[in-house]
Amino acid sequence: MSNASTTNMRLKLPLICLLLQLLLIILFGVFVRYDRDTDPSEWSRRKAQENVTDSDNEFYFRYPSFQDVHVMIFVGFGFLMTFLKKYGYGSVGFNFVLAAFSVQWATLVQGWLHSMGEDGKIHVGIESMINAEFCTGSVLISFGALLGKTSPAQLLIMTIFESALFSINEYVLLSVLEIKDAGGSMTIHTFGAYFGLTIARILYRAQLDKSRQREGSVYHSDLFAMIGAIYLWMFWPSFNSAVTTLGSPQHRTALNTYYSLAACTLATFATSSVVNAEGKLDMVHIQNAALAGGVALGTAAEMMITAYGSMIVGLFAGLISTLGFKFLTPILDSKLKIQDTCGVHNLHGMPGILGGLVGAILASLATKETYGDGLQDVFPLLDTDRSAKVQGGYQALGLAVTLGFALIGGTIVGFVMKLPIWGAPADTQCFTDQPYWELPEDDWDHGELVPVKIEETEKPT
Amino acid sequence: MSNASTTNMRLKLPLICLLLQLLLIILFGVFVRYDRDTDPSEWSRRKAQENVTDSDNEFYFRYPSFQDVHVMIFVGFGFLMTFLKKYGYGSVGFNFVLAAFSVQWATLVQGWLHSMGEDGKIHVGIESMINAEFCTGSVLISFGALLGKTSPAQLLIMTIFESALFSINEYVLLSVLEIKDAGGSMTIHTFGAYFGLTIARILYRAQLDKSRQREGSVYHSDLFAMIGAIYLWMFWPSFNSAVTTLGSPQHRTALNTYYSLAACTLATFATSSVVNAEGKLDMVHIQNAALAGGVALGTAAEMMITAYGSMIVGLFAGLISTLGFKFLTPILDSKLKIQDTCGVHNLHGMPGILGGLVGAILASLATKETYGDGLQDVFPLLDTDRSAKVQGGYQALGLAVTLGFALIGGTIVGFVMKLPIWGAPADTQCFTDQPYWELPEDDWDHGELVPVKIEETEKPT
Amino acid sequence: MSNASTTNMRLKLPLICLLLQLLLIILFGVFVRYDRDTDPSEWSRRKAQENVTDSDNEFYFRYPSFQDVHVMIFVGFGFLMTFLKKYGYGSVGFNFVLAAFSVQWATLVQGWLHSMGEDGKIHVGIESMINAEFCTGSVLISFGALLGKTSPAQLLIMTIFESALFSINEYVLLSVLEIKDAGGSMTIHTFGAYFGLTIARILYRAQLDKSRQREGSVYHSDLFAMIGAIYLWMFWPSFNSAVTTLGSPQHRTALNTYYSLAACTLATFATSSVVNAEGKLDMVHIQNAALAGGVALGTAAEMMITAYGSMIVGLFAGLISTLGFKFLTPILDSKLKIQDTCGVHNLHGMPGILGGLVGAILASLATKETYGDGLQDVFPLLDTDRSAKVQGGYQALGLAVTLGFALIGGTIVGFVMKLPIWGAPADTQCFTDQPYWELPEDDWDHGELVPVKIEETEKPT
Repeated sequence: MSNASTTNMRLKLPLICLLLQLLLIILFGVFVRYDRDTDPSEWSRRKAQENVTDSDNEFYFRYPSFQDVHVMIFVGFGFLMTFLKKYGYGSVGFNFVLAAFSVQWATLVQGWLHSMGEDGKIHVGIESMINAEFCTGSVLISFGALLGKTSPAQLLIMTIFESALFSINEYVLLSVLEIKDAGGSMTIHTFGAYFGLTIARILYRAQLDKSRQREGSVYHSDLFAMIGAIYLWMFWPSFNSAVTTLGSPQHRTALNTYYSLAACTLATFATSSVVNAEGKLDMVHIQNAALAGGVALGTAAEMMITAYGSMIVGLFAGLISTLGFKFLTPILDSKLKIQDTCGVHNLHGMPGILGGLVGAILASLATKETYGDGLQDVFPLLDTDRSAKVQGGYQALGLAVTLGFALIGGTIVGFVMKLPIWGAPADTQCFTDQPYWELPEDDWDHGELVPVKIEETEKPT
Repeated sequence: MSNASTTNMRLKLPLICLLLQLLLIILFGVFVRYDRDTDPSEWSRRKAQENVTDSDNEFYFRYPSFQDVHVMIFVGFGFLMTFLKKYGYGSVGFNFVLAAFSVQWATLVQGWLHSMGEDGKIHVGIESMINAEFCTGSVLISFGALLGKTSPAQLLIMTIFESALFSINEYVLLSVLEIKDAGGSMTIHTFGAYFGLTIARILYRAQLDKSRQREGSVYHSDLFAMIGAIYLWMFWPSFNSAVTTLGSPQHRTALNTYYSLAACTLATFATSSVVNAEGKLDMVHIQNAALAGGVALGTAAEMMITAYGSMIVGLFAGLISTLGFKFLTPILDSKLKIQDTCGVHNLHGMPGILGGLVGAILASLATKETYGDGLQDVFPLLDTDRSAKVQGGYQALGLAVTLGFALIGGTIVGFVMKLPIWGAPADTQCFTDQPYWELPEDDWDHGELVPVKIEETEKPT
Repeated sequence: MSNASTTNMRLKLPLICLLLQLLLIILFGVFVRYDRDTDPSEWSRRKAQENVTDSDNEFYFRYPSFQDVHVMIFVGFGFLMTFLKKYGYGSVGFNFVLAAFSVQWATLVQGWLHSMGEDGKIHVGIESMINAEFCTGSVLISFGALLGKTSPAQLLIMTIFESALFSINEYVLLSVLEIKDAGGSMTIHTFGAYFGLTIARILYRAQLDKSRQREGSVYHSDLFAMIGAIYLWMFWPSFNSAVTTLGSPQHRTALNTYYSLAACTLATFATSSVVNAEGKLDMVHIQNAALAGGVALGTAAEMMITAYGSMIVGLFAGLISTLGFKFLTPILDSKLKIQDTCGVHNLHGMPGILGGLVGAILASLATKETYGDGLQDVFPLLDTDRSAKVQGGYQALGLAVTLGFALIGGTIVGFVMKLPIWGAPADTQCFTDQPYWELPEDDWDHGELVPVKIEETEKPT
């Protein structure tokens, strides 16, 4: 990556933001309309003519879940990445602007592909809002792999392409292959992780050692990161269940995810301790691997996996995720030239694949006996068009398709991001807010190679 | 402001708190009763005699929104103000006690004015709780203008008057002028901002330079402030929609606010970068101006503003708010002698007025064609008593009335707060927790003029 | 306590975690099944045969409350304990693993005792999840008394016993004595506090002075603690109302708790200021005593205590809790040899007893006149089997039973925890993350007796 390009984006960044926002406004003006639960005349017509009351408005069934997902996207992802000692502003700030752009852009692309009405318009409401946040989650996972080594302009460019590709892949899986992936083990986690890791490979920095001294945490930055981690952990049951069928499927999805995460947490603590020479726990594992139980249930949580089945998956997810941080991340870096700042391969990549496979297995085992008449809520095709085994096969195919989209898409987008016009930081300027943020006085020495110095200390002499 | 008065409030502060609380208890005993959804005998009577089931209890429609608003008031406002390097305890602590007092006091004043039952009692439930929090939001906006320059006793005195004045102004707007202001662009933001700014003018400190070296942030204090900022941003859709009509109006209000905030965020990043000589982003803008899109939709969000219309308003709000921080705040300070610590003029003042005007325009454009039978949910008078244009005129009048109440009320209350008996800090003791809080050892040097020194560092020699 | 035992738990901690998790999985496999609202075939059968729709699923009535309780358990308790300057990882991290274990284990024990179906199975859903979190709250209260002086293995051992004992005590109170304790003044707070304090007595460290220099806070650690405190405070209305009868009882419970907490906050500020020689506020009081109003309404909040009655209880709770921190905690330490790190006696012990007594009084005053037909929602036995006075007597008996379980159980479990095989920290290694956590470079000197030194500072010379 060229170090010659300036990081001063005084013209480019504002132009990109404003042009994108103006384009969004125009496209929203042309394509976006209120849906039948947000439009006043349609809603009052339904109340008068159909047997509908205000309490049937989808708002009351989905809005609490939406807000939990919303917190995960903006606080969860944002603060999880503040673990770096000198990249807190970039973590939470870039997370903020990328997500604010992505939720708008995804509404359009998902709308064009999935939910165009007969009138040629996209009708928005709480469900489209949740789906746009899901797409955004995928973008933020990719951001995690690139954290500290990319400019905001690069990341916005990535988001333009990634939200679109995410939506296409999602369309292929959900509408063409007709597979299930309510919590997005495949569409969100596997896609986001391998897309981001592929970009990280393209943007490999041979000279990153010049910034490595800033790649760790300080005591309080790890506590900020725990805010993000715990919020992700707590609200993952809402994430996986946010768009499932109402009634027992939504309820069951939340419950299964809950038990998976609890088991994953114990597995993470156990593994983190045993891989350390002194038996000490590592904050990186606790902040990340303990969440893998949510990722790994992203496909199967609405299925009849049972509580103890969920716990087995969670246990296994915590185990492989922690081992990944300890043994695989260094290899990815040194052998495969993939510098994965946040370890998204361990939290989203491997557990995402695991989740896709668990979903395929569960689908192939689905029977009318276990689901009763609830079978059609989870697998609408299974009564008539497909056998359970075929559904399982399609699920596995969906995982392969997702990996294909991620690797090919990531390669192309990586080369676009590598163009020396986006203000990427120099190798000596990675993992620091200094190039892109006004810093308070105590961080004047921020970009220099002084180790951890937070402030000027004047000793009374 | 006299520096002679002591900041030791060992008698006055406890006396004020306890007397106020005892008075509240007595007034609650005399005036406050459970409403029909909280009272056991009334609720069981309704279930038996009217076609009502437990799921119709207003709790299930409003409580999730209430909790989001609650988080905004106590975490959002509280942590947003922790950006000051040495005023974190005061920010979150005074926010806490002011809000705890205000939600009780507002329940009484709003009850007396708006919702007195035929029995001469105020009937409380989830809706009165939300309304009391709204009033409290206004108080906390004013607090933002005075942050670091006032004592807790001064602020409690302010709250007594402001909650009462807020309720009177709200009564005039909603019940006399019969205008719409669901998210409070006028009643909450415009009122709170200009009330607080007027007080700031009265309490002007010519010698504030003696404390200016503490008026900035340190690295971690800005991250604490981002917690507050992001929570406010995320839950603003709940804020604007918390007391709207159930069904599509509530759903639409949340959705419009969501898109306005997203657009506002991109506008804020763009503007923040372009006004900086090196194109760097400024945390103060991100923390504040990105929220202006919520303020600016406080009146119009329930109307037929459309998603792209919301985005236009949000874009404009982010733009003027950021420009305000950059260019207007210094002028307010130097020319108009208004020292606005948190820049509430930029986040609440200008966007509040913008929101009031947008609401007036939208109201004047309302037609039966666009709203269908939903028109009466939003504008109950428009079918029969008023034309849309007249409604728009009343809306604009409401904005003018609000400004009048804020300026006159703020002037009077400012002079009361200026009395040298409330333990205001000396000019050298502003923006520091030292006068009012026990500090941990690492902050012994807290009140001195040593720049940022957080701790004693003993260098191994 | 022997200092000879090593804190290196590289084998023991992983073994304990994994064995416990495997045991949980097996027991869940044998005993746990979906309940009628989470099982697909049962739910679809009910929809077909009974007059049930998806909107009747208990998920929609309880899940928002569950998530609020969930945040209290994982963020609230976890961050409240981060006030210690060098124990942030242990506070939030051990809180995390203990809670993740306890919610699983409590599901089993509570299920065996309370809710075993006719099929010999435990049927889980949102209500069992909330109850398991309640049990976990009790464990975390006990953890607070032992914070910084115990190893994770010791704490897991404690949790095994405490969750079981909690469930037995809860069974005796709710199912044998048939008393009311919706928010757990007795079952959660009194039990957790006195159980933990008894253990603290058994684990008394005569040489704790060797670590006392780390027992305080630093500026930013107190702000992290305020995150926990404010979340507990905000969501306490959800906590007390999470499992009450739907309709007006749940609504009323939230409302009463809200007013109690508000009044408690003013009382806490008043008392904190008056007991300080300079009238300064103490963060420890604000973080803790302001919450006592929620504890003290844990039994009575669903009863006809009225809003002003709730405020009186809250006022009194804030008063005794703050006085407890100031005057009682030092005496417990010096005279009774109870080293109560977080002051749980002041936040949970005394206010818990107060809450039990208030509940007994309110119960003894219950009449058909005040509750109407809602009486059976709150006191199902009062119409037929018991007089109000007798119910009040049973309530008081429940408090005594709880104290008995806590003291006897705590004594036994304390001696188990005292066995020198659990890797307890040495007297010189208390209140520091150093023995159990990998620390970032800036904390290399963490375990040493250097006062507050956060980082190495190299002064340019």
